[in-house]
Amino acid sequence: MEYSAEKLNEEKVFKDPVHRYIHVQDRVIWDLVGTKEFQRLRRVKQLGTTYLTFHGAEHSRFNHSLGVYEIVRRIVDNVFDGRPEWNQEERLLSLCAALLHDLGHGPFSHSFEKVFDLDHENFTRAIILGDTEVNQVLSRISADFPKKVAEVIAKTYGNKLVVSLISSQIDADRMDYLQRDAYFTGVSYGHFDMERILRVMRPKEDQVVFKHSGMHAVEDYIMSRYQMYWQIYFHPVTRSAEVILTKILHRAKHLHEQGYSFKHMPLHFYSLFKGSVTLEDYLKLDEGIFLYYFQMWEEEEDPILKDLCSRFINRNLFKYVEFDPAKEYKKLARLSVLFEKAGIDPEYYLVVDSSSDLPYDFYRPGEEEERLPIHLLRKNGELRELSRESEIVDAISGKRRTDHKLYYPADLILKDRKEHEEIIKLLEL
Amino acid sequence: MEYSAEKLNEEKVFKDPVHRYIHVQDRVIWDLVGTKEFQRLRRVKQLGTTYLTFHGAEHSRFNHSLGVYEIVRRIVDNVFDGRPEWNQEERLLSLCAALLHDLGHGPFSHSFEKVFDLDHENFTRAIILGDTEVNQVLSRISADFPKKVAEVIAKTYGNKLVVSLISSQIDADRMDYLQRDAYFTGVSYGHFDMERILRVMRPKEDQVVFKHSGMHAVEDYIMSRYQMYWQIYFHPVTRSAEVILTKILHRAKHLHEQGYSFKHMPLHFYSLFKGSVTLEDYLKLDEGIFLYYFQMWEEEEDPILKDLCSRFINRNLFKYVEFDPAKEYKKLARLSVLFEKAGIDPEYYLVVDSSSDLPYDFYRPGEEEERLPIHLLRKNGELRELSRESEIVDAISGKRRTDHKLYYPADLILKDRKEHEEIIKLLEL
Amino acid sequence: MEYSAEKLNEEKVFKDPVHRYIHVQDRVIWDLVGTKEFQRLRRVKQLGTTYLTFHGAEHSRFNHSLGVYEIVRRIVDNVFDGRPEWNQEERLLSLCAALLHDLGHGPFSHSFEKVFDLDHENFTRAIILGDTEVNQVLSRISADFPKKVAEVIAKTYGNKLVVSLISSQIDADRMDYLQRDAYFTGVSYGHFDMERILRVMRPKEDQVVFKHSGMHAVEDYIMSRYQMYWQIYFHPVTRSAEVILTKILHRAKHLHEQGYSFKHMPLHFYSLFKGSVTLEDYLKLDEGIFLYYFQMWEEEEDPILKDLCSRFINRNLFKYVEFDPAKEYKKLARLSVLFEKAGIDPEYYLVVDSSSDLPYDFYRPGEEEERLPIHLLRKNGELRELSRESEIVDAISGKRRTDHKLYYPADLILKDRKEHEEIIKLLEL
Amino acid sequence: MEYSAEKLNEEKVFKDPVHRYIHVQDRVIWDLVGTKEFQRLRRVKQLGTTYLTFHGAEHSRFNHSLGVYEIVRRIVDNVFDGRPEWNQEERLLSLCAALLHDLGHGPFSHSFEKVFDLDHENFTRAIILGDTEVNQVLSRISADFPKKVAEVIAKTYGNKLVVSLISSQIDADRMDYLQRDAYFTGVSYGHFDMERILRVMRPKEDQVVFKHSGMHAVEDYIMSRYQMYWQIYFHPVTRSAEVILTKILHRAKHLHEQGYSFKHMPLHFYSLFKGSVTLEDYLKLDEGIFLYYFQMWEEEEDPILKDLCSRFINRNLFKYVEFDPAKEYKKLARLSVLFEKAGIDPEYYLVVDSSSDLPYDFYRPGEEEERLPIHLLRKNGELRELSRESEIVDAISGKRRTDHKLYYPADLILKDRKEHEEIIKLLEL
Repeated sequence: MEYSAEKLNEEKVFKDPVHRYIHVQDRVIWDLVGTKEFQRLRRVKQLGTTYLTFHGAEHSRFNHSLGVYEIVRRIVDNVFDGRPEWNQEERLLSLCAALLHDLGHGPFSHSFEKVFDLDHENFTRAIILGDTEVNQVLSRISADFPKKVAEVIAKTYGNKLVVSLISSQIDADRMDYLQRDAYFTGVSYGHFDMERILRVMRPKEDQVVFKHSGMHAVEDYIMSRYQMYWQIYFHPVTRSAEVILTKILHRAKHLHEQGYSFKHMPLHFYSLFKGSVTLEDYLKLDEGIFLYYFQMWEEEEDPILKDLCSRFINRNLFKYVEFDPAKEYKKLARLSVLFEKAGIDPEYYLVVDSSSDLPYDFYRPGEEEERLPIHLLRKNGELRELSRESEIVDAISGKRRTDHKLYYPADLILKDRKEHEEIIKLLEL
Repeated sequence: MEYSAEKLNEEKVFKDPVHRYIHVQDRVIWDLVGTKEFQRLRRVKQLGTTYLTFHGAEHSRFNHSLGVYEIVRRIVDNVFDGRPEWNQEERLLSLCAALLHDLGHGPFSHSFEKVFDLDHENFTRAIILGDTEVNQVLSRISADFPKKVAEVIAKTYGNKLVVSLISSQIDADRMDYLQRDAYFTGVSYGHFDMERILRVMRPKEDQVVFKHSGMHAVEDYIMSRYQMYWQIYFHPVTRSAEVILTKILHRAKHLHEQGYSFKHMPLHFYSLFKGSVTLEDYLKLDEGIFLYYFQMWEEEEDPILKDLCSRFINRNLFKYVEFDPAKEYKKLARLSVLFEKAGIDPEYYLVVDSSSDLPYDFYRPGEEEERLPIHLLRKNGELRELSRESEIVDAISGKRRTDHKLYYPADLILKDRKEHEEIIKLLEL
Repeated sequence: MEYSAEKLNEEKVFKDPVHRYIHVQDRVIWDLVGTKEFQRLRRVKQLGTTYLTFHGAEHSRFNHSLGVYEIVRRIVDNVFDGRPEWNQEERLLSLCAALLHDLGHGPFSHSFEKVFDLDHENFTRAIILGDTEVNQVLSRISADFPKKVAEVIAKTYGNKLVVSLISSQIDADRMDYLQRDAYFTGVSYGHFDMERILRVMRPKEDQVVFKHSGMHAVEDYIMSRYQMYWQIYFHPVTRSAEVILTKILHRAKHLHEQGYSFKHMPLHFYSLFKGSVTLEDYLKLDEGIFLYYFQMWEEEEDPILKDLCSRFINRNLFKYVEFDPAKEYKKLARLSVLFEKAGIDPEYYLVVDSSSDLPYDFYRPGEEEERLPIHLLRKNGELRELSRESEIVDAISGKRRTDHKLYYPADLILKDRKEHEEIIKLLEL
Repeated sequence: MEYSAEKLNEEKVFKDPVHRYIHVQDRVIWDLVGTKEFQRLRRVKQLGTTYLTFHGAEHSRFNHSLGVYEIVRRIVDNVFDGRPEWNQEERLLSLCAALLHDLGHGPFSHSFEKVFDLDHENFTRAIILGDTEVNQVLSRISADFPKKVAEVIAKTYGNKLVVSLISSQIDADRMDYLQRDAYFTGVSYGHFDMERILRVMRPKEDQVVFKHSGMHAVEDYIMSRYQMYWQIYFHPVTRSAEVILTKILHRAKHLHEQGYSFKHMPLHFYSLFKGSVTLEDYLKLDEGIFLYYFQMWEEEEDPILKDLCSRFINRNLFKYVEFDPAKEYKKLARLSVLFEKAGIDPEYYLVVDSSSDLPYDFYRPGEEEERLPIHLLRKNGELRELSRESEIVDAISGKRRTDHKLYYPADLILKDRKEHEEIIKLLEL
């Protein structure tokens, strides 16, 4: 039998708290899950530092990847199969792309990528196309299959309908993570009627559209997304941990560049510092490795590296105040001077962090990030962009919200120290 | 104000998926959570290797410890407070003991303790009484407070009522982990009506008893416990991972003893190998550290260490067959010989693992592990042992169930190899 | 002991699917639940005809009334008690008003009140102040206690803080019914974090305010409310049943006024027809009584009454089309003529029904229905009106949405009947 | 197209709180739901008088019937379809039998059938085969289709596999009601992993069997059933309401037989009293009708009928004590004499009620009620009876549990009345 058509003797199931069960019948999916590159995702948390705010958020990207696969499987097998606008030959491609879409994520990737100027999407592509177990499995389907999978994930694949299953304003990726992150953090946001949304999905030329009768379930999803962003993903305590993490990596890099002699050699970081990380090096990284170094570095000589690592490991985070860059840039400048004078390096200990989200947007040609709108399908076959039909979505559509916060180490600002007086006043402590 | 009576300005809450919210008002509890020893529990999984079977089970002992605290807090503040048989002066002691009861757990402690002949209970005691942040916080209550907390956890404290809150056949520890492990694995077992159980708890001399009207909720708890043991805790795939883990640690120790020269020096293991681990060394251990070494050791020269580490990291586990030691010991002996001959070291690759549980038991004086029975309180004040009242509990009471399985690496047993023929036959592959 | 301070020997609990348990310790509450007037609420559905659309919605006002009581109890006992701005002497008054706030609801009260020009609020007042078991119980507290309870429900009580617990844009009444109706219908809307909302409630002069940190939970509540209104309460199929019900009552009244001789005498309706219903008569009414008559009237001579009753009992409802009164009034007029000609009385068989809701509003003095805004309490003590802080709420604030639908009996419009041709065309069937 | 193959243009869904959605694609199912006989089930509560104990239990048999249909649909379409042992031609028969299996249930059928010596199964059969809308719909499939549906429900149909889907120790009927009744009462019992059970179901000759790997889910179901029986179905307060209901019907019948002249004529009861109820009469009965009469009879002259009706309507129930018939028969006799003397008719006011259940049983030939055992299917094709594999099920298997209680009106037994002294003593009040 052809490998692409090969089924397991008996369907395998993974018990999943979000989707109850994840079903696998295709040999290729089973084999992909067993690869070392996919197993590595168990060692990368889905929500990075969020577990320091919401202690339940300890779930990995392995979890989420299986979830996205399962959602696409349900769409394709239970909703699209048999419809003329859907080509069932794209089925396996959709499933593999869904499963592997996050394969290149590194440890705490938000901060990590920023400091070392990396992009996980490039690594996803490299893993799929490179000398890896994943590539071996995919290549058994056909020689060009890995490339097709990589294209779907990169959104460059010809059939945009397939792309939109995992990359659009309402895709399997988002539907999984909103529900999953809500489940593990325990918050009541993040619930929407996915079963209903799946049932009203329809393949339509180059996009997935939604039967009009399901509009309210889609609205609910948009609102869930909005709440999850501001309540969970941008939570200021999580951001504080992210700030410290970023500064640790900056400091280590800086020390390396200054020729600092580490007590504990940062073997895993050398190629990162040099900006020449190979796929092999990259695949060795995970959050356990990072935490290992941070714990070792608690014993370094450099007081900044040592202190920041200790803060991260023992969750002694920075505090924050609201900050308006447009109006308060002078205050920030003054604080920098005062920190410097007080012997607290503002480069590492006085940090502005910004969060920004656009809850939903329709197509605005020519803008940086062109978002594909969500379309509703009327009974008469007509398509209507969501915000024209939904008052609630219209109300928040296209409204970018941005928050800025100024982070600082409250425990280092002392009430009885004369040189801290003005700092305390400016920060309104 | 005395430290023991100090309250936070504003009650703090942790969002918890199991108990919705965990409430902290006491300064001492807040301070304990902030200690580095308690934060370390974030880096030790509650269920060890179970995440390799149930991918949701990635939650840490930090999670569980907060949960046990919260249950005891609800019992003490909402149910016991004001009852003559309860001394509210034991409140803070109960809360601290609940929070800290698992403090000494090491990484993958089941295997870890077995190989290195350690006992996490000793380390819990050592952390509470030693030179630690936890000890500093507890000592602020009173000089003998750390000792009292350690005694409650060690079950040697005079007031057995306090002990029974966290150590009995139905205690806050078990009630939390059954629910929490069910939540994170996603299984439907593990649900029982804890709110009802808490409401019928009554302090009674040296034990917690349960109003008779709550018997069915208690029955349900016993059945949940039974199902969780056999469905989750003793799951054979989890046991397989545990077997490999144990063998990795054995092998590393063995190599060290043989003077093997590690490419990657097992710094964190030296004192373990020597059997002279200090508290300071111990506190540096966590699961990230272990996984770091296992990943490094994938590149060692020793083929066994290398192979076992690779199996664990990439989840390439052993398969198993049922095994009856009483009847099949000869088969095992023969298989050992055959493995030896085939060049597969039976010491590491042919392992019998046994699981055993007693779902509930009443008091049987003189037995090894004397279990305190669960007592129901009748309206007339009379106490009745649970299994005398509940037919279901009576039916399973005192019946120890034991399962044995024989683990082996299926991928090394090859169908086309002559010398594997008899192995295949004996294992009925 | 004074009756107001009398506690039950043992706290009583009702198992409740929404709040888990409803707790009763006060003798007066227990006694009120046992009165025949309160037990009557078991025979009035919370959502009237909604069960014909959502089959789970068979729950009664008895259910909901207990739920509102429980929410107020939790607010008062767990959140307000001990705060200087709250007078615990208002506790029992708040609990009784919460429990009894819906006491005067008649069967299918929406239609019922419209047809007979009644107001359930008057009956609530009459039951509380009249010669009833409820009044006897309340009077045992004090002679003026019934009057105070009636005033709280009528919103005329002096202490507006007490009033706002059960009558405001975010009160115990709404919090219970949104969750309860979502639970029984099974929809995923209607979930919000009530536990969080209760925890951030603060008594503040003449209103309940919400700590700013709970803003997102309040937002979520507003969005839930919005979705429940349009998905459940205004569901067009439910409205169809309501239309038929209204027409049955109209027809019966009309027939009575015309001197029609009923085969089955409408004993329970005579005083309603006359517009002189006494409290005693009123209390005999419930939905079982109505359904009894509707079933009997299926055998009346009058074809319209007979047909409408049969439709309601056997759920053979009207269909509907969207209708825009401003643009389509001429079409409606023409349809009326055509129905008349076709022998289908448009008075009973061609009905416009309108639904309208204002999701949230701040105070607009001088408007018909002045709504008290929701206020957020900042750390500095400042109050901020919700829509000024929440972008989402601001987006929908003050925007009234109205829908109109035209109902008609599709089964009576026949494709092959010449005189129905134009009807079919106009209704776009 | 043949009616049996006719599908709806668009699948219809019912929102269901237990199964999320109930899916209907077959025209015949849609038509059956619309019949007046099926709609009548909305007016019969699933759990009779249980709502007087658990206020959430107000759900109807309409609800449950749809649920059983949905479970059978999922089994047949998602699990059995395509397996050689299943004949898909039995599909529609299975679905119709599932939907209609409770069609003949009367109001409060437990008491009702006992008093009037009726059997709802006969009426189910009569409705299916008689001159009804249901029969008309079924007959459109084929002339003998109604008969086949009736046979499946009566368990006399040739293909026992079809019968076992809705009548066995683990069938769709039980799986629905356990979950549904748990949901509406709000209790935590009644949860089991139905999704898992459905997945391991296999058609096997004349029965449904369960793959061995699903044993624990089946165990959990058995335990749920056990708990639901004793916690919900046999709840003594519910039984008390049942006792009063039975006595009302007895009294009304007795009065009629004595020639008593009712103020309010029991029109709907005449044929019941005579023992000659026709199908037409029967179908007019529902719980609203009963409650209507009970409310009217609150104003009858007969003091017993009047009192009992008032007790039922206003939930003023009897109290109870444990009663052991084998040991306490003399006490009962003495109490009867004392009640008689005190002017409290023991026939109506001193009632023994017994509940009895067998949680699970294997086949015991020759016994009254032969129960078909549950079989587990091993990988090698071998069948094993459940209690041989499961220790827990073995422990409770075949153990009938019976409880007896003695009900009496506590409010009529007065402490200060001399003639009640001995009663009080005997009842240990």
